[in-house]
Parts: sequence; C-alpha cells; structure tokens
Amino acid sequence: VKISEVRVTPVAMRDPPLLNASGVHEPYALRSIVEVDTESGATGLGETYGDAPVLGALNAVKQDLAGLGVFDLAGVRARVAARVLEGHKSLAKVYGALETACLDAQARHLGLPLCELLGGAVRARVPYSAYLFFKYARHIDAPYPEDDWGEVLEEDALVREARTLVDRYGFGSLKLKAGALEPAIEARCLKALHTAFPAHPLRIDPNANWSLATALGIAAELGGILEYFEDPTPTLEGMAELHRASAVPLATNMVVTTFDEFRRNAALDAVQVILADHHYWGGLRATQQLAAMCHAFGIGVSMHSNSHLGISLMAMTHVAATIPNLSYACDTHYPWQTEDVVAGGRVPIVDGCVSIAAKPGLGVDLDRDALAAMHEQYRRCGIRKRDDAAQMRKYRPDFISQRPRY
Amino acid sequence: VKISEVRVTPVAMRDPPLLNASGVHEPYALRSIVEVDTESGATGLGETYGDAPVLGALNAVKQDLAGLGVFDLAGVRARVAARVLEGHKSLAKVYGALETACLDAQARHLGLPLCELLGGAVRARVPYSAYLFFKYARHIDAPYPEDDWGEVLEEDALVREARTLVDRYGFGSLKLKAGALEPAIEARCLKALHTAFPAHPLRIDPNANWSLATALGIAAELGGILEYFEDPTPTLEGMAELHRASAVPLATNMVVTTFDEFRRNAALDAVQVILADHHYWGGLRATQQLAAMCHAFGIGVSMHSNSHLGISLMAMTHVAATIPNLSYACDTHYPWQTEDVVAGGRVPIVDGCVSIAAKPGLGVDLDRDALAAMHEQYRRCGIRKRDDAAQMRKYRPDFISQRPRY
Repeated sequence: VKISEVRVTPVAMRDPPLLNASGVHEPYALRSIVEVDTESGATGLGETYGDAPVLGALNAVKQDLAGLGVFDLAGVRARVAARVLEGHKSLAKVYGALETACLDAQARHLGLPLCELLGGAVRARVPYSAYLFFKYARHIDAPYPEDDWGEVLEEDALVREARTLVDRYGFGSLKLKAGALEPAIEARCLKALHTAFPAHPLRIDPNANWSLATALGIAAELGGILEYFEDPTPTLEGMAELHRASAVPLATNMVVTTFDEFRRNAALDAVQVILADHHYWGGLRATQQLAAMCHAFGIGVSMHSNSHLGISLMAMTHVAATIPNLSYACDTHYPWQTEDVVAGGRVPIVDGCVSIAAKPGLGVDLDRDALAAMHEQYRRCGIRKRDDAAQMRKYRPDFISQRPRY
Repeated sequence: VKISEVRVTPVAMRDPPLLNASGVHEPYALRSIVEVDTESGATGLGETYGDAPVLGALNAVKQDLAGLGVFDLAGVRARVAARVLEGHKSLAKVYGALETACLDAQARHLGLPLCELLGGAVRARVPYSAYLFFKYARHIDAPYPEDDWGEVLEEDALVREARTLVDRYGFGSLKLKAGALEPAIEARCLKALHTAFPAHPLRIDPNANWSLATALGIAAELGGILEYFEDPTPTLEGMAELHRASAVPLATNMVVTTFDEFRRNAALDAVQVILADHHYWGGLRATQQLAAMCHAFGIGVSMHSNSHLGISLMAMTHVAATIPNLSYACDTHYPWQTEDVVAGGRVPIVDGCVSIAAKPGLGVDLDRDALAAMHEQYRRCGIRKRDDAAQMRKYRPDFISQRPRY
C-alpha cells in the first residue's frame, strides 16, 4: 500500500483571549492538517502545529514521501530526518504528524479503529479534564464578535467558568492554567475551586513562572488539595528541589519533553507525572513507548494539549485508549474552540470522556468546505508563528517576557 | 479479523551435548509451536519455550482466545493475565509467544512482511554472531548417532569449531559460551580465538559462574580483546562493581530481564549492553520498547537466544530489522540444530546474516510432516523440563549446581 500524495493545509481557528505565563492567546490559533493519500484509496489524517517552522518542514518533506509504503514508518522517519536538520525536537514534531496520518491510513485501509492497530484499547472512553483559564472578555483586535465566557480574572468568575465546563461536558477533574496573575490570587482561586468542587481532583499549572521560593510557598498552602502540581518552577533541578522539600507530586510537559530528559529525570526524581503529547514526542508509537518507560520507572502518565481541532482530539483519544497506565484524565483545549475541520461538527465530550467509535482509523473525516474556510482564515489572519507575549503587549505595552515572573 | 483457534504443539529437536555453567545440554531441546488461526484464513506462527510451565500456561489460555480480534493484543494480554498468575516473567513469556503469532497473522492477513507491520525495517539483513560452545563428542544416553563436531574441550578444537562456523555461515563475530571449564582454560581459548580471528569481535559469556575476584582477573587479562563481557559474575551489584573496577563493557541477559530490573540498572550503571529476547521480554513490541529505552539511556542492544527453530529465528530477525540501535550482532543457537519445523528446510545464514524475504508475515511456513515428527519425538523423548545439571550428573555423578562455581 503505497503513499500516493501527502497534502499539508495550514488552518487558523478562532481562539479566545486566554491568559498564561507567556501572555495571552492571539485571536487565531494555527494548525497544520496533514492528509496522506494511499494507492488503495484510504486517506489518513494528522494534525499538528501550524507555526511556520513546522509547516515549512512538513511542506519540505511531503513530496519525498510518495512511493513509500504507508506501513514503512522507518522509511518515513528517514525521509524526515534527511530534510529536518534542526535537531531532535523538530524531527519528532514533523515525523509525529506524518506517523499519525500514516497510521490512520493503515487503519482505514484495514477497516480497523486506530487504537486496534496500536495494539488494542484497554478503555473505550478516555477521560479528559476541564481546562480552566483566566481570560479577558474580548480580543483587543476584535476581529470577530466576543465570546460568551466573559472576563475571568478572579475566583467567582473562575468558579462560574468551571461550573459551565462541568455542566456542559461532565468533566470529573479540573486544571487551572496559572502563572498569569499574582500567585496569591491564583492560590485563592484554587481554594475556591476546591470549595465549589470538593470531589474534583485539582491541578494547577503555572508554566514554570514561579521561583522556587514562590512554588514552595504555594506547595505548602495548596499541597493537600492538589492531584498534582504541574511545572510550578523552571528546570529539572528546580523541580527536584521542590519535590524533595514539599513531597507534592510534580508533573511536567516542560522539563521532560524528550527521551534524553526522561533519563535525566529518572536520575533526579524531579517529576512524578509526565504529560505525554504525541505532537512533540514523535507520534503515537513514541507516546506508547514513553508510557511504557513511565511504567518501568514508576512515573505517572497524563496528557498535554495545545489549542487543537478534532483530528488531534481523536488521535489523543485513540493512543490514550491503548495506554494501560494512563493514570490521569488528559488535558484538552477543545472546549475553547468553536470551529472544526471534521465532518459532522464538533466531537462530543460526554461525562468528561471522548469515546472510541466503531469506525475505521481516527473515526473522523474532513469537512472539505470547513477546511477551505479555515485555510482562507489562515491566509487572511496574518499570524504565522504564535506569539502570546507580543499579543499581550497590545494590552499592556510594558509587558516583558521573563520566567519565572513571580 | 477474529481469532478462530489457537493450537500449541510441543516439539523436541535433537541438540548436541553443549556445555555451559549449569551442566550440559540434554539430547533433545523442547519448544512450543503456536498457531493462531483467523477467520480470514491467515494463520500466524509463534515459537517459544517447550518446558512444562510455559506449555501448560499456553494450553490453559489458548481456548480463551477464540473470538478475540487478532489485532486486539490488549485483549490477548488480559486473557493471559487472567490465567497466568505466577508473576510477570511467566506472563511475558506466554503473552510474548501469542503476541508474535498474532502479529504474524496480522501481517499475513495484510500481505506484509512482519517487520513492515512493526514499523518498517532499517536493515534488510540482520547480522548474527557465531555461538561457540565447549562440547562432549557424544551424548551419554546415545539416543541417536553422534554429530560431526566432535569433542571441544581445549583451544585447538575450539578454533576448529569457530573456523567451521565462520566458513559455513560467514559469521563476522564470535561468542564463547563459558563458565563450563576452568576459567584459565577458557581465557586461553579466547586468546587463541583472537589470534586465529584477529578481525572478529569477541565475546565471552560465563553465565554468572565466576566470582567477582575471578571476573576481575579475567577482565584484566582479556579486557582489551573483548567486544563485551557477558554476565561474568552474579547480581546487578556485582556487575556494577566489576564495571567500576575494570571499565570493560558488560552485557547481560541475566540481571536485566524485566523493565523493573532495567530501572535498577539505570541507577547502578551495572551493564552497558542488554541482550533483548522477545521470548521473555513479552513479545516483539516489548522488544522494540526495550530498545527505545536502551536508546534513551545510552545502553547498547544485542540479542539473546536459546536453542530454537526457524520460527523463532525469523521472529528475532524481523524485530531486529526494525531496531535502529541494534548495536551488535545477535546471538543464535540455530547452527547447532539440524531439524526444523519450517517448510523448505533450514533458514539460510549467509555472510553471517539472515535476510528478510519479500513474503508475508515471518516469511516461513510450517512443514506439517516435520511438525508431526518432532511432536512425536517430544512424546517419546521423556524430557518435560530442561535440566542441564541432572544431565551432567550422568557424566559426572559428583556434579553439583552452584553459582558462581569458580
């Protein structure tokens, strides 16, 4: 079954003005949609970053893949490696998107759900966590009407946001994207969430925006109500010191992002939970390998997300369904997006879970009209590389990029 | 594609009187041949240990598998786990044999070579090492005519044995199974091999039969001519101490045989090369995971073997073909066997390598007459569990099992 053509389509989707340690989300988030056509007629789908470096690499490599067997992932990797020279992380991102699309094409060719091709599901529904953000009411550029979520900059609004997400999607755990406001405000917010949702496991993720001293203080204050404390402070060494001092379980998608960092973490016992993400770990098989390594080293597995569409959601869901030691509900930005490229509209999240359908491959197909419209949106929006700090300077001209800020 | 039936056939093959740390090989070695039939007509093959515990577990679980999807390896693993209660190693052995056969059935159903289904080959030919043994001229029980290899108990005979193996199969590296004779004799033999084959990398494997003091002495004597020193002395801690003191690269198939031991080894830096073996690591995917972990931890990958037939040889070859960081030629006992269950006779080893054929699955089929004859041989031979020490006591009634012996 040979690859006949690979297409890469950049798209832009509307994204709310969500706050984080780097600044604020721009009005549009970018994604690349990958299609791998095969001579057998099956087309596999992938989705990854739409920023210029990854998009450029995908476009550079795509014409090298025609004629390769769609099962020949080693061949795909070799072609990517020949084009992508900027190091392991870029290779993992570009290969990961193509691998996912090839695996989807394989599964569609076979008429199997993708998780079956990956060794079989250990769960039919994958739990996700409500991803809470502080946000502004509206984008300063106002390129489209403002959303219904309103401004969320203190605890009452945040609890309302959480209530809406829980009511609407049935999420059973809550994660707060922090590092955006003063740590004392964010700690107060977490306590308010605990009071409002006493049975929901809670996570907070300041994206390494706190000094070790600040992180130690918050760990002492919140440690007892945290499921885990995600990337409170920079560097593996800082995380190790925090864990030794606080005994709070630490999670990361920042200091363990490669297998080399995995090894260093094993020596340091810096983090106890790793957030997998097939987009940068090198695909679905690499994600399974990461999970197997976490099992061997007694490290918990959760899952990271960026702003994404339904193709990524289903890829995350299929691989998560195969991982026995997925110990935590996965992150997803999906409820914050309103548009999608998948046919039939948005993928449902019910009881906090995404289900595996008895359909071939990822179980979702492209809506070509939506894809064309979102590509046109990409063409017009002018954004080519995410820059939350530059966006924040439109609101606060004195905003400087520094980490840790607090 | 559902599994319709699983068959398990124990077979016995003639095996020469090869010496090792435990004693001497019995006249027959046992294997279990696994066949997984699918409703689509494809039958997958597996081969593993034929000893009573593994055979019994395979027979216990085989009837639980009909009706499962042949791609549903998670389901197969769950069924095995429900039957095999004696711990992780037994589960890995039983599941590994079934996984290999299911993967072979998948690949045959798809019309793909097995290595393609495993992600694609990075090499078309897999190198093997000449496996040198000390041996007696004939079995004391004399159940069949003696072999042509004669007695090999000192260096001249050993060099002749090596010459024959290299001439016949083109092996490019040599491994001596040691721990059988006095260490001084074995060291002399290794030096003779180095003189006779100066360009061939050399390995010696005393199967943990040397004390740390003995191993240190041999490391000092032979370190400069060893590619690696395999399991010279018992325990991870002993190996770690030997490596610290000698700086010779150490390899193992004894102290790192599970992912739990992998983690302990990473902390101790006891061994620098791990011999993979899909038969006890839990199958072909687990072997790939082990190799990925070795890559992450900077550990070399080689491959272990027991006495085996062509099905195992091809499973080893297909998975080895997919492992980029397979840093050493694989071990194989295959040249010591004369019988096989595969159609068309023995699998060829040319220039020291086994090639991947452009055939579906493992690329070998069963010779049903040969299978029936070797099963009959199993029925008659009376051996049900390998016991090299008991066999040695037929030659030397005072032989006692102890390790380290020297």
